[in-house]
Amino acid sequence: MFPLPAPMRAALDAAIQAGLAGEVPVGAVVVQGGTIIATGANAPRRLHDPTAHAEIQAIRAAALALGRDRLEDCELWVTLEPCAMCAGAIAHARIARLYYAASDPKGGAVEHGPRFFGQPTCHHRPEVYAGIGEGEAADLLRNFFAVRR
Amino acid sequence: MFPLPAPMRAALDAAIQAGLAGEVPVGAVVVQGGTIIATGANAPRRLHDPTAHAEIQAIRAAALALGRDRLEDCELWVTLEPCAMCAGAIAHARIARLYYAASDPKGGAVEHGPRFFGQPTCHHRPEVYAGIGEGEAADLLRNFFAVRR
Repeated sequence: MFPLPAPMRAALDAAIQAGLAGEVPVGAVVVQGGTIIATGANAPRRLHDPTAHAEIQAIRAAALALGRDRLEDCELWVTLEPCAMCAGAIAHARIARLYYAASDPKGGAVEHGPRFFGQPTCHHRPEVYAGIGEGEAADLLRNFFAVRR
Repeated sequence: MFPLPAPMRAALDAAIQAGLAGEVPVGAVVVQGGTIIATGANAPRRLHDPTAHAEIQAIRAAALALGRDRLEDCELWVTLEPCAMCAGAIAHARIARLYYAASDPKGGAVEHGPRFFGQPTCHHRPEVYAGIGEGEAADLLRNFFAVRR
C-alpha cells in the first residue's frame, strides 16, 4: 500500500470527524502552493445550515482566509464526488484542480446527473482527478449508513 | 400595473441594495406562513465568499433562525433564475416553492443548462413559478452591467 497524498489523508480525517459528530462522513481541504489552508467537514445538522457540505465549508474558509472570492491558485480535495451545489461553488470559486475519492451515483454532479462541468452554463472547469482514497472514503460512508438502517 | 407580491418586492429591494454595494444585483427572501423570515443580497466580493449568492444567504439565515437544516414549509423568492449551486441548495433545504423573476440563459440551472430539478440525482423538486417581477429584475441587471462595460 502506498500512503495517500497528505491532502486526501486530511480530507478523510475531516470526514471521520464529521461521522463521529453524527453527520454524513464527508471531508474536504483547500490546498494552495502545497499547503492546506482550509478544512471542511460536512455539518448541515449541527450548524442548522443545509449548505454546510464539506466542500462549501472548506471553500468559504479558504476565501475568507485569503480575503478574496476567487481561488484560482487553489486545489480542492474531497472524499466524495461533489453534488450540484458544491460543483457550482467550485466553479464560482475558480478552483484550479479538483481531487475526489469516492464517486456518488445517487447525488454526484461531476460524473453523474447534471455533469455540471460539461454544461455550457458552467463558466469554469477545474482539472478533475477521481479515485484517490476511494476505498477508505466509500467504507466510511457505507459503515455510517449501515449502523443507521 | 398591478403591485408585485410583497416577497418579490422585498427581493427586488435586496437586489437594489446589492447593486448599490457594487455586487451583481440579485436579491432573495425566504417566506414562512406568509411572513418574510430571511433576506439575502448577493455579496461574494464584499464578503470574500464565492458561495454568497442571494439565495444561499437567505437560506442560511432562515435555517439558522429556525434552528434546523430543512425548510420544507418555506418558499424562496429570488430576482434571478438560480444557478446550479443555488438550485442544489434549494433541493438540500427542501424548499416547498420557488418563485423567480428573470430567467438566466447564461448561468441558470432551472430552465437552462443542467435543468437540475429534472435530474434523477435531484432528491427534492420545489414547485416553480417564474416571471413575477421579471421586467424590473432584468432592468436592474442590464443597467448594472451597462455602466461597467
